[in-house]
Amino acid sequence: MIIKHSEEVESKKIVEEGVEGVHKQRLLTPEMGAPNFTMRKFTVEEGGFTFYHQHDFEHEVYILSGQGVARKEDNEIEISAGDAILVEPNEIHQFVNRGKEEFVFLCLIPNDAKM
Amino acid sequence: MIIKHSEEVESKKIVEEGVEGVHKQRLLTPEMGAPNFTMRKFTVEEGGFTFYHQHDFEHEVYILSGQGVARKEDNEIEISAGDAILVEPNEIHQFVNRGKEEFVFLCLIPNDAKM
Repeated sequence: MIIKHSEEVESKKIVEEGVEGVHKQRLLTPEMGAPNFTMRKFTVEEGGFTFYHQHDFEHEVYILSGQGVARKEDNEIEISAGDAILVEPNEIHQFVNRGKEEFVFLCLIPNDAKM
Repeated sequence: MIIKHSEEVESKKIVEEGVEGVHKQRLLTPEMGAPNFTMRKFTVEEGGFTFYHQHDFEHEVYILSGQGVARKEDNEIEISAGDAILVEPNEIHQFVNRGKEEFVFLCLIPNDAKM
């Protein structure tokens, strides 16, 4: 059994075009023995957003705190703490902080995911 | 994209020997199209506990609220909000509420998990 407290896991700011104010932590990973899927935690600053993109693997997301939207190709949906979201393979998506606080969520992906 | 608010997902109390005060919700499932893994949410009442057992698949757990312990074969470890836990395949484990509030956590498993 491996226990990681989120506060103790390294947080890396994603510095790439198309992303703003997003910090990523890898909580449970294949390197520590997770056989099938990887648990990441994202913290999005006020005004921040993740990539607007698509890929051939799914996301399983759980919103921990803050107020945001999930953008799809045709619309966007408000999301907040307690919402669970399945982003299906090849679906265009983006997560945007629309609140005044940090927008924080878990996002799990299969270990063999390739961007 | 499928969005489920936890409050709207059916909660089932697990009534089996070896389990006490545990309510289970299946948030993201293969039936709704999750390709690889399943997100469940568990709410454990004061004094409650999950199975003390083992199986050949992993758990990926994230503690949402409350105070509990993760029991292993040889010891137990206090866990609380923000802790991420990898229960490795075949590892004996149990989650016990040791607080005065509900103990709430996500627990993800591979879709092909068989108890």
